Amino acid sequence: MKDLNRPIGVFDSGMGGLTAVKQLIKFLPNEDIVYLGDTARVPYGNKSKKTVIKFSIQNTLCLLKFKVKLIIIACNTSSSLALNTLRKRFKIPIIGVIEPGVKKALQLTRNKCIGVIGTNATISSNAYQREISRIAPSVKVFGQSCPLFVPLAEEGWLRGKVTLDIIRKYLAPLIKRKIDTLILGCTHYPLLKPSIKKAIGTDIKLIDSANEVAQGVKRLMNVKGIASEENKKGRMKFFLTDKPYNFKGIAEKFLGRKIGYIYQVKI
Amino acid sequence: MKDLNRPIGVFDSGMGGLTAVKQLIKFLPNEDIVYLGDTARVPYGNKSKKTVIKFSIQNTLCLLKFKVKLIIIACNTSSSLALNTLRKRFKIPIIGVIEPGVKKALQLTRNKCIGVIGTNATISSNAYQREISRIAPSVKVFGQSCPLFVPLAEEGWLRGKVTLDIIRKYLAPLIKRKIDTLILGCTHYPLLKPSIKKAIGTDIKLIDSANEVAQGVKRLMNVKGIASEENKKGRMKFFLTDKPYNFKGIAEKFLGRKIGYIYQVKI
Repeated sequence: MKDLNRPIGVFDSGMGGLTAVKQLIKFLPNEDIVYLGDTARVPYGNKSKKTVIKFSIQNTLCLLKFKVKLIIIACNTSSSLALNTLRKRFKIPIIGVIEPGVKKALQLTRNKCIGVIGTNATISSNAYQREISRIAPSVKVFGQSCPLFVPLAEEGWLRGKVTLDIIRKYLAPLIKRKIDTLILGCTHYPLLKPSIKKAIGTDIKLIDSANEVAQGVKRLMNVKGIASEENKKGRMKFFLTDKPYNFKGIAEKFLGRKIGYIYQVKI
Repeated sequence: MKDLNRPIGVFDSGMGGLTAVKQLIKFLPNEDIVYLGDTARVPYGNKSKKTVIKFSIQNTLCLLKFKVKLIIIACNTSSSLALNTLRKRFKIPIIGVIEPGVKKALQLTRNKCIGVIGTNATISSNAYQREISRIAPSVKVFGQSCPLFVPLAEEGWLRGKVTLDIIRKYLAPLIKRKIDTLILGCTHYPLLKPSIKKAIGTDIKLIDSANEVAQGVKRLMNVKGIASEENKKGRMKFFLTDKPYNFKGIAEKFLGRKIGYIYQVKI
């Protein structure tokens, strides 16, 4: 297979990363994509750094079997804890979801107060804080873990009073800090975007990392000269390490469209 | 080691099973206990039957290395999906959490309408329904999965308005069915007992399986003549497959007391 036309590999702890695939299809419609969701061990957000690194290496090795030309870690926890290790260990370009979201937030903030929401592991890793401090040391960053958001999204409780109350309870400390920009630091959270917007009002700008990642990947592929030359609609292949209850329904909710066959894979 | 004085083995997908250990300490204070929590792959409630069986076999093999005399599956999902396979494969007595809870519920119900709450996997497995039908075919059983309860318990949101609203939303269909007995079909749920009681009122009886399991194990050990003969306080050893964020705090919340060293184990 010609190098340029090899697929893009995407992995996530589960199916949330399909929100990133949705954006890839939008910005890079003629690229082939191989998606790997580690549903047998999802979620990563409540696991240790060592374990998340181990799982991330296994996911990368699995994607490399498909001769991918580039890997996107569509999982904030894994991007926070494992990106550096993976980049040292593998030669292929590897893109996480932290950097693109951070860059966009730094463009948008006016008062230099940025909020980040994510899983326990992402927030306690301080990965966003470190990345922002590296680029713009004077910017203040406030993190808030929201462990109920992932089950809320998977349960499909995307709107309604209970959901709004939960969002308000988590976000109150950030609003008190007067943040003017909020990074959705978890691939599940875009599903809750309408309710989060309702809870925070119009003064705070929301950053959806999935969107920024897709645009970042497009730029990178042009710079490196590895964008597909084929003038056709990209093909997609989906692999999960487990096929749990209602996996197709959940996958289609995140991808925002119908999905063909989903393969199961051992890693 | 004399057969009678070997430890009892307990496994769970994570730390929720410590609510069962808490009851074992109460009813069997002089027994040694080895606890294994599969925190690297928690939760099981959103995994497939095949995967839960595979993980349960691995957990059993790990406990057998400690020469346990009996194994308690302190996980409703694993009890629902893997108990029969484990009993066929291993000679040692293995006790799940389904049967003891069911027996108690059948003693207590007056109108023969029983509700069961649990994870997606437990409820969609129909394990409670099947067990109740086997013993008392005329009893009606209504299941309701409550995927937000586990993260609520782990987050420590045990009381308060948001928690009550979530509980009410999940339990409304069961109350409409006029159940008079409710089985807590997940080891995490006892932490939410005060709020659940508040939501359902005093007319519906709550069954906490952990309590029933401990009493069932005590009876079984007397019948089989394998209760410990030692007249001392039982020793406990705790093993986790991962040590995630705040694991000690969470473990102590479930056990209801301070905990010593927690070992990490590969399975």
